[in-house]
Amino acid sequence: MLSQRLLLALLSFLVPASALWPLPRQISTGNSTLKLARNFDIKISLRNAPKDLQDAVSRTKGRLQSDKLERLVVGRGGADAQAVRGGRATLSGLTLSLLDGAPVRSISEEAVVDVVSRSEGYVLHVPSDGSAAVLRANSTLGLLRGLSTFEQLWYDSDGTTYALGAPIDITDSPAYPYRGFMLDTARNFFPLSDIKRTLDAMSWVKINTFHWHVVDSQSFPLVVPGFKELSDKGAYSPTSVYTPSDVKDIISYAAARGIDVIAEIDTPGHTSVISKSHPEHIACPEATPWGSFANEPPAGQLRLASPGTIDFTTKLIKAASKMFSSKFFSIGGDEINTNCYNNDAQTQTDLAGRTFEEALDTFTQATTGALKENGKVPVVWEEMVLEHNVTLPKETVVMVWISSEHVAAVAQKGFRLVHAASDFFYLDCGGGGWVGDFASGNSWCDPFKTWQKSYSFDPTASLTAEQANLVLGGQHLLWTEQSGPENLDPVVWPRAASSAELFWTGPGQDAGAALSRLHDVAYRMRKRGVNAIALQPQWCALRPGACDLTA
Amino acid sequence: MLSQRLLLALLSFLVPASALWPLPRQISTGNSTLKLARNFDIKISLRNAPKDLQDAVSRTKGRLQSDKLERLVVGRGGADAQAVRGGRATLSGLTLSLLDGAPVRSISEEAVVDVVSRSEGYVLHVPSDGSAAVLRANSTLGLLRGLSTFEQLWYDSDGTTYALGAPIDITDSPAYPYRGFMLDTARNFFPLSDIKRTLDAMSWVKINTFHWHVVDSQSFPLVVPGFKELSDKGAYSPTSVYTPSDVKDIISYAAARGIDVIAEIDTPGHTSVISKSHPEHIACPEATPWGSFANEPPAGQLRLASPGTIDFTTKLIKAASKMFSSKFFSIGGDEINTNCYNNDAQTQTDLAGRTFEEALDTFTQATTGALKENGKVPVVWEEMVLEHNVTLPKETVVMVWISSEHVAAVAQKGFRLVHAASDFFYLDCGGGGWVGDFASGNSWCDPFKTWQKSYSFDPTASLTAEQANLVLGGQHLLWTEQSGPENLDPVVWPRAASSAELFWTGPGQDAGAALSRLHDVAYRMRKRGVNAIALQPQWCALRPGACDLTA
Repeated sequence: MLSQRLLLALLSFLVPASALWPLPRQISTGNSTLKLARNFDIKISLRNAPKDLQDAVSRTKGRLQSDKLERLVVGRGGADAQAVRGGRATLSGLTLSLLDGAPVRSISEEAVVDVVSRSEGYVLHVPSDGSAAVLRANSTLGLLRGLSTFEQLWYDSDGTTYALGAPIDITDSPAYPYRGFMLDTARNFFPLSDIKRTLDAMSWVKINTFHWHVVDSQSFPLVVPGFKELSDKGAYSPTSVYTPSDVKDIISYAAARGIDVIAEIDTPGHTSVISKSHPEHIACPEATPWGSFANEPPAGQLRLASPGTIDFTTKLIKAASKMFSSKFFSIGGDEINTNCYNNDAQTQTDLAGRTFEEALDTFTQATTGALKENGKVPVVWEEMVLEHNVTLPKETVVMVWISSEHVAAVAQKGFRLVHAASDFFYLDCGGGGWVGDFASGNSWCDPFKTWQKSYSFDPTASLTAEQANLVLGGQHLLWTEQSGPENLDPVVWPRAASSAELFWTGPGQDAGAALSRLHDVAYRMRKRGVNAIALQPQWCALRPGACDLTA
Repeated sequence: MLSQRLLLALLSFLVPASALWPLPRQISTGNSTLKLARNFDIKISLRNAPKDLQDAVSRTKGRLQSDKLERLVVGRGGADAQAVRGGRATLSGLTLSLLDGAPVRSISEEAVVDVVSRSEGYVLHVPSDGSAAVLRANSTLGLLRGLSTFEQLWYDSDGTTYALGAPIDITDSPAYPYRGFMLDTARNFFPLSDIKRTLDAMSWVKINTFHWHVVDSQSFPLVVPGFKELSDKGAYSPTSVYTPSDVKDIISYAAARGIDVIAEIDTPGHTSVISKSHPEHIACPEATPWGSFANEPPAGQLRLASPGTIDFTTKLIKAASKMFSSKFFSIGGDEINTNCYNNDAQTQTDLAGRTFEEALDTFTQATTGALKENGKVPVVWEEMVLEHNVTLPKETVVMVWISSEHVAAVAQKGFRLVHAASDFFYLDCGGGGWVGDFASGNSWCDPFKTWQKSYSFDPTASLTAEQANLVLGGQHLLWTEQSGPENLDPVVWPRAASSAELFWTGPGQDAGAALSRLHDVAYRMRKRGVNAIALQPQWCALRPGACDLTA
């Protein structure tokens, strides 16, 4: 009764190097077992190796010691005991070097260069004869990516750290330059420790962008120099804030892990909380019934037609974007409610005969102009180009969120885009409605988006070859109506790893075959203190394919 | 624009004693603010107060110190600062006593008496003039329930512990005697610390039964005296087990918190793992395709027609049920797959002309007979009475799980029942499919069951008045295909609190009005180390009613 599928699953289980995630684009493996020497060391063959590369090496060495992950097979570590005892070769070292002519820059510098010219590729050779392993790249960022791969090779059997499938040869680089994760820290607040733990987990699966939806209508936790009143009055509490030094901390923590931080001040909608300190700038603040004035409570939008508000907003965008080192900064632009403006006498006066769309164009030119002065490229939500025809710099990046069916329309406008579609990548779906007094309510993006769903996404479906070049990549997103520090890890991991592989390895992989590797990701994350959830009963996790529908 | 609903919400927000959960059946409150004296103490007015009551008092005193929950209103603790400063009365003591003639037994003894005669009622009087509060009950168990209520009265404002709405008079007792929570520790394993934390949280909302689905086809973590080989071969690892001393620990921990532990050895289905140590007793072990032999992998059922297997099973049930102090023990009985037996030559031989149903009846009489010898009452899943017509003791308790629509049919058979219906009380729904290679798969009990859904349940719908007497209560259930220690708290809390109130306070309460109290439950749980999730953005949690659909 051994089906072909089960046979294939058993074969994949015999090639343990395939537990790597994301799967390298080129890999060849052998049949040898390789032990990690007790005195194993990692050498950086570089003069003046950057401090953050040295730190990355230290973290890798630490994890090689502390992961102690037993392989996910029946019998766990014990199943490999004989192979490990029999294995003769012992790996005593890994040497890191840059390819000839590559500039020596820190990971942190490389992590924030223009996304399309970012260099994340690497070549890793792990011999089976005990000679030193070699990791080469064109950048320290590439070396970091190679270290993440190297870390995933190792398992524990009764105290011995070993890899199977040596010699291992990997030549790797991402299919898409942008692989992100978005976190909303406004609907519910997340302490720095949660964000840092998330950045760590992101780096393990080579996600390179943290899209930080830092403020929204519900709260304003970002302390912006010169605009301290916004967080003083708008944060959930005096301690529920991100100070400039916190932001620096996050940026440098992220950059050292190869992650660019794209912050967002969503405008002109999603700004109700600004009314707490600047009532003069907000139309329809907390107006009821909220359903008439906003997509979710509380209502309130920047008075986009008022010269004073434009001045305030451009200065805020300028000050906020200056806090971040990324080339990109998001000015949002989603879910603008026209009824709010229609009912706001001040806005009607300020329009002075102009249409709402004309005023929005002026407003947006002001905010993108402010970004330009800071040398930043705007990121916007899809409505800015699909529902409103505002003037935007050609290099603007558009995030497609409402539906993956809108991708072609954005591409037709000639803008670069990031996949962030609710029907594939929203992590908050499936948890039922959060609006009160609505017992039968679903979350608007129901049903639950499984990891298989996002994994099955085709980034260039419905695009011409030329349009396909506009796709920078994609990301999972966590809106936090029903999330907080309590469920951050379980709601994000390992699901967000599925887009990490999709946009690194490329689409078209088989989810059924990938499942056993994703189990590996989740089990290893748990060893590292990230509460990634079980995708199956452990019985299934130890028996690749045995819980398939067709098994 | 202040709707009537919002007005009602604002009113409820002015009566903070209503943050109690479950809502007492009778409560009256006043308008005074009451501070907790620094030297506040709880006295037990009993000769030879049981140790577990003394411990419960210590825990309450500890939580009064450590909760430090600021009230969920705009401004949090600061909003009450003036009232707290102005409050003159200070509560220096709470006195616990039993009503005249009540026997002095420990909480642990009271927690396991026959569920229908269990005494959980209490009377609590908290005066507003500074004189001592009084808690009276007919049992130490009732005193424990009163302590849980008393703990929920207190908030923190800048270091001062205070209650609003004094004087407070409460006369309380549960609408239903059985209020449970079921955990499956077989599909994925949970360490003792997770179970204990869950028992704590259960006791805070007066849940009185832990239904422990301890073993299943995937793993056998229970170490049963005389049957050690089952866990030796069937546990996920040598440390993923519950030893007899662990079980004793759980039972006494639970009992001290007023919780009865009903363990389950599911038979004759859901027993595949027994084949690891006793292949002679299992039909179709791990047969493929599993879908033909079981509802989920791995297949495998006890050879119910074999005299040797009946002997083995009765001895196992006897030994396992002896480990637990509860009057109840579940022998399961769900999802028996006849195709498995039809294809098992041994079973066909053993049937020797009997029908499968006849053999099942003999098997069940043997297992219930074993329970009877131990003085235990059987608990079974609904199929045992609805799909099979086996002989069962009249006092057997039937758990209705497949659908709430089956309740009437069970009641018609005259059996006592517990509501455990998948369409209202399954916590594992909504997370997508877990079966491999099935990208579009939903979990079978999709969609997600919100707390509002379970809260809206009517325990006696479709029952006659006489049949309604058969309803013991109900419970939430967590099957753990996609759950483990990583997401235990977030997937359970605060949702499971909704059935706790439903079956304590009684049905028919308004979920919209209850939401603000449930926020209180979740925020307080977090203060106590239980990761209860956010039900809404904090903006909404601080503004009762403001995020209602009709606000």
